[in-house]
Amino acid sequence: MTKPLRLGIAGLGTVGTGVIKIIQRHAAELSEKAGRPITITAVSARNKDKDRGVRLGDYAWQDDPVALARRDDVDLFVELMGGADGPAKAASEAALATGKDVVTANKAMLAINGHALAQAADAAGRIIRFEAAVAGGIPVVKALGEGLAGNEIKRVLGVMNGTCNYILTRMKSAGLSYEEVFAEADALGYLEADPTLDVGGIDAGHKLALLATLAFGTQVDFPAVHLEGIERITIEDINLAADMGYVIKLLGVAQMSARGLEQRMTPCLVPDSSPLGQLEGATNMCVLEGDSVGQIVLRGAGAGEGPTASAVMGDVMDIARGFRMPTFGRPAQALNTAKIATASTPARHYIRMKLLDKPGAWAKTAAALAEAGVSIDRMRQYTHDDPEAPVLIVTHKTPRAALDAALHGMAETGVVVGAPVAIRIEDV
Amino acid sequence: MTKPLRLGIAGLGTVGTGVIKIIQRHAAELSEKAGRPITITAVSARNKDKDRGVRLGDYAWQDDPVALARRDDVDLFVELMGGADGPAKAASEAALATGKDVVTANKAMLAINGHALAQAADAAGRIIRFEAAVAGGIPVVKALGEGLAGNEIKRVLGVMNGTCNYILTRMKSAGLSYEEVFAEADALGYLEADPTLDVGGIDAGHKLALLATLAFGTQVDFPAVHLEGIERITIEDINLAADMGYVIKLLGVAQMSARGLEQRMTPCLVPDSSPLGQLEGATNMCVLEGDSVGQIVLRGAGAGEGPTASAVMGDVMDIARGFRMPTFGRPAQALNTAKIATASTPARHYIRMKLLDKPGAWAKTAAALAEAGVSIDRMRQYTHDDPEAPVLIVTHKTPRAALDAALHGMAETGVVVGAPVAIRIEDV
Repeated sequence: MTKPLRLGIAGLGTVGTGVIKIIQRHAAELSEKAGRPITITAVSARNKDKDRGVRLGDYAWQDDPVALARRDDVDLFVELMGGADGPAKAASEAALATGKDVVTANKAMLAINGHALAQAADAAGRIIRFEAAVAGGIPVVKALGEGLAGNEIKRVLGVMNGTCNYILTRMKSAGLSYEEVFAEADALGYLEADPTLDVGGIDAGHKLALLATLAFGTQVDFPAVHLEGIERITIEDINLAADMGYVIKLLGVAQMSARGLEQRMTPCLVPDSSPLGQLEGATNMCVLEGDSVGQIVLRGAGAGEGPTASAVMGDVMDIARGFRMPTFGRPAQALNTAKIATASTPARHYIRMKLLDKPGAWAKTAAALAEAGVSIDRMRQYTHDDPEAPVLIVTHKTPRAALDAALHGMAETGVVVGAPVAIRIEDV
Repeated sequence: MTKPLRLGIAGLGTVGTGVIKIIQRHAAELSEKAGRPITITAVSARNKDKDRGVRLGDYAWQDDPVALARRDDVDLFVELMGGADGPAKAASEAALATGKDVVTANKAMLAINGHALAQAADAAGRIIRFEAAVAGGIPVVKALGEGLAGNEIKRVLGVMNGTCNYILTRMKSAGLSYEEVFAEADALGYLEADPTLDVGGIDAGHKLALLATLAFGTQVDFPAVHLEGIERITIEDINLAADMGYVIKLLGVAQMSARGLEQRMTPCLVPDSSPLGQLEGATNMCVLEGDSVGQIVLRGAGAGEGPTASAVMGDVMDIARGFRMPTFGRPAQALNTAKIATASTPARHYIRMKLLDKPGAWAKTAAALAEAGVSIDRMRQYTHDDPEAPVLIVTHKTPRAALDAALHGMAETGVVVGAPVAIRIEDV
């Protein structure tokens, strides 16, 4: 038995206490698997006196996470505080500078400061691992960075925010409005203090930016993620999409093509028979597409004490077993600044609008579409009592610019009431 | 850039040529990710002159894979020949004995000889990696052995033979008999030379035995896998199961409980709304259940050149990056001989039978069930023209012994025509 791997854990929220519970519960098993004991030297959190339901008496207490990260009797710094900057970043930097690897669940920190941290890790000859930062318990960072390392990755997709998927699923199953389900979720304590992190797609966008870096060898570039939240999704769109065989998801897509790197975290329609379309509730799903492997789908809990702690422990065990790999799968200096795609990959789109019910209305609308070069795959006009006819169009594949031109042209016909709703259909 | 990792590849079938294509196509990328070049020194196969559609001229040729495995200019032996014993095993042993790691796609070799090979690897200070041996391109060995290393694994399930899943899916969608679809698959070249390896569940059973070892830290024990093929599944059962909301799958289940280790590769009913129930065609799916992570589902191509070569390359890249882990996730001497469960975990069962259409028939049948302590969850009798009524029963959870007693009792009533069909329902 070689010498133990001694952890310093900063942050004792749900995930931190989850990690401690696993290490206490499975000490013998972990030691056998790693070939060395996994021990905890010291912990740090804001409130020393809070009862967290876990024994902490054996561990040294540090009020200051940076001091914890610098301790000589810590081999591995486990950062579970959160926050893009501030103590999490300072402590991670201190750990690297004093010769320690870092395991973190902090998607915001890596999405914003990941490249600088990866450079610091390389310079120190240390590594940062972050399985828990993306899709909770799903080992997607490992699958993408290691299991699929022989592939040229073409596209990565995912439903990576459980709250959004819960809201959209619940709207559909209960026939409720966004506002009604949002209020429900709030009452149940499902929402973050700042709910726009979830429903605005920011949290999921952080995760997507990390996967894109692993997939394409590009520097993490969260500001380049095209973000759109679920706040404007209506029950009407959910029902009409269903009528066409689709489900609306907050879908992350990172894609590399000749036009450059595309990163989108936006509501999309996906076929209701696809694995993504069938994903209900707060579960997460990641879809990885490589030139050799084809399509791999991974599904599991995207949050919660157990799943997230499981992901942290996977990283801890890798490091205990001696696995070394640069933070994003290759040296930071080899990560390219990606050419950003100026336009998204052409796609079919769903368009919903209200049309004045009078002769010539359809002719004018169709002409506007034709003028912009947008052709129609399927169209439905629904029965109606008022003078405005609900109309649904599924277009053939079209560049977004052409679609926007068509939407503009339709607005000018004078027969379209209000602004049409257009949502991308992602082929999966 | 450190020194190259020099491969010796034995076996140039679909997978071997697939691996060579990846290494030739992505040399620069692989080198950047691994921090060192991945090169091929020598290859070996039965027929030197066959055109395999890939350049081999740069590599030394060895007729004898054992001689290849022993070469001083090979660092890593890649075994892609297949076969439980014979050249594959001899060459793998030679590689380990001469200080080389081994990457293999050979499920039969590891299911039969895995423990001895793991011991040999440990003794030599080398490792064997085998991602490609289980579920093709799906990185399930990595997910189970590394990503979920912090978990106590409770159960591993999977559809791990694409041919069987194709046959069952096709029977259902086309309403064809097993014999008809088998003939179709044969004509399309989907079947192995010995099709019982597929349809008899042997191939999938090999895979399950490997996953069980990783999951539970037990010595690989393929003979303990309860094997039952799909040959006796009828279109009638498929349709009636569908009527009850179930799909029939050849399902592998490895489960550890107080009663010991259970390994089953048998036809089971699963809910048609579950990920396993929705899995169509030749795709594979593995479901991993751990105490912290909950349920993780992995889905992808279970065979084929690209996916299997992708899995081989994942292992090659891990070794190139310096990852060291004992073959089955812990030292061979730490692997236990599992207590074998003498009875399977109680489960609901589907029972189909024909009942003589006369007064008292149901009373006698129900009495036989009651006598054995088997209670009924749902029951349907279907309309019929002949004097034999088709009857379906879904039982509550029952031990298999009680179910067998009930089946025996029903046979003795004199009102059940022929032998009832009983199929386990697996909760997923």
